[in-house]
Amino acid sequence: MMFKRREFIKKTSIAGLMVISLPEIVNAAIPSSTRLKLADSDIILFQGDSITDSGRKKDDSNYNNTTSLGSGYVVQAAGDLLLDYADKGLKIYNKGISGNKVYQLADRWDKDCLEIKPDVLSILIGVNDYWHKHDGKYNGTIEIYNRDFRALLERTKAALPQVKLIIMEPYALKGIKAVDDTWYPEFDEYRFAAKQIAKDYDAHFIPLQTVFDEALKVAPGEYWSADGVHPTLAGSKLIAHAWVKVVKG
Amino acid sequence: MMFKRREFIKKTSIAGLMVISLPEIVNAAIPSSTRLKLADSDIILFQGDSITDSGRKKDDSNYNNTTSLGSGYVVQAAGDLLLDYADKGLKIYNKGISGNKVYQLADRWDKDCLEIKPDVLSILIGVNDYWHKHDGKYNGTIEIYNRDFRALLERTKAALPQVKLIIMEPYALKGIKAVDDTWYPEFDEYRFAAKQIAKDYDAHFIPLQTVFDEALKVAPGEYWSADGVHPTLAGSKLIAHAWVKVVKG
Repeated sequence: MMFKRREFIKKTSIAGLMVISLPEIVNAAIPSSTRLKLADSDIILFQGDSITDSGRKKDDSNYNNTTSLGSGYVVQAAGDLLLDYADKGLKIYNKGISGNKVYQLADRWDKDCLEIKPDVLSILIGVNDYWHKHDGKYNGTIEIYNRDFRALLERTKAALPQVKLIIMEPYALKGIKAVDDTWYPEFDEYRFAAKQIAKDYDAHFIPLQTVFDEALKVAPGEYWSADGVHPTLAGSKLIAHAWVKVVKG
Repeated sequence: MMFKRREFIKKTSIAGLMVISLPEIVNAAIPSSTRLKLADSDIILFQGDSITDSGRKKDDSNYNNTTSLGSGYVVQAAGDLLLDYADKGLKIYNKGISGNKVYQLADRWDKDCLEIKPDVLSILIGVNDYWHKHDGKYNGTIEIYNRDFRALLERTKAALPQVKLIIMEPYALKGIKAVDDTWYPEFDEYRFAAKQIAKDYDAHFIPLQTVFDEALKVAPGEYWSADGVHPTLAGSKLIAHAWVKVVKG
């Protein structure tokens, strides 16, 4: 924690923001009308990049345990779900892989999604589609992201017509380490695309950028993310809280 | 999950237990009169054995991150605390070590507790004091557990007169793998001792045995613990929920 706590609190107190709790602020950012109702024995699959992966063990097909779920938002959300819905017999999987862009999800989609037959599929993908391009390591464009993401969902819905979808918004914390002004406005296009895709494919959309922007009113960027992209434990719990809100209402 | 879900639900439905949520059941087991109020910049230290340790990285002095906090109840509680009290600048440490009995906490207490100067100290210790004796690997008795635990708290209060204490009850899930009838009634003495010690040293007491017993009404033992002692992810979140309840009321 490198921030000047006293100054920060003074600033936020002036804005009058300390009177309601952060979970309440996050809840306000996610309309409860979008509630996704879990059913008995639902299989929940989390898919994405390093933010989802978070050091999970790769060579197993296990669920509901910390080794398979990693140390990020998935295990925090899974803890909440397995406690709150202990009577439901949920099976929770994490198949995120660090560095993934949309086309890399597509490459492994049969094995890491369709064969698992999720009832609920949660996808957080897009920051690398931009970031790796920004850093000259990838030639993708917003058009490719858009096209590949839609193709992935078409394929998913064809194989799993009943699947309930959650699409999480790619986010970044401007001014924190890796994320500077050069990201904008181009990175925003990936956020907008994810939102439109969620709408077009009838997915529950979690506005993570809004969630983080709200959280920044309570504690500074470094509290939520070490590099502007990867969440700290506090940031992981923030994402998990937003996710669980979609289910709990 | 090896249990017959349908039968189990039928049984619990007959008992009329499915109408309130598990978090509510847990809350009912912990009187809200025992609330511990967190202050700005509080240092919170979790101490104990493998249940606390949960694979944390040992050779660092870090806090608030998943590597240092392990994958058990500490990281689940820390996630909740860092989100709910994001404005407080909490520092959360885990110094649990697998296999520890009370005397082993004492051996490392200067470095792993007193030097950290916790404002809130949470201790979960005792199952190995009994288990290792039961298995013929340790010669301790309930008298030694009682004496050593009290000496540890005397030493702690002398060095840190203002410290707020939380003592968690050692628990076991009878009939799950390692825990059979031969544990009883002797193991219960360790539970009763911890409760009396908490009372005598003005500590907040978390009745984990009661919490797990209540949880067993909603899902079977294997859902909460793989071997009767070490919690699953669901069990870890259960402990974390009970812990956070003491703080949130």
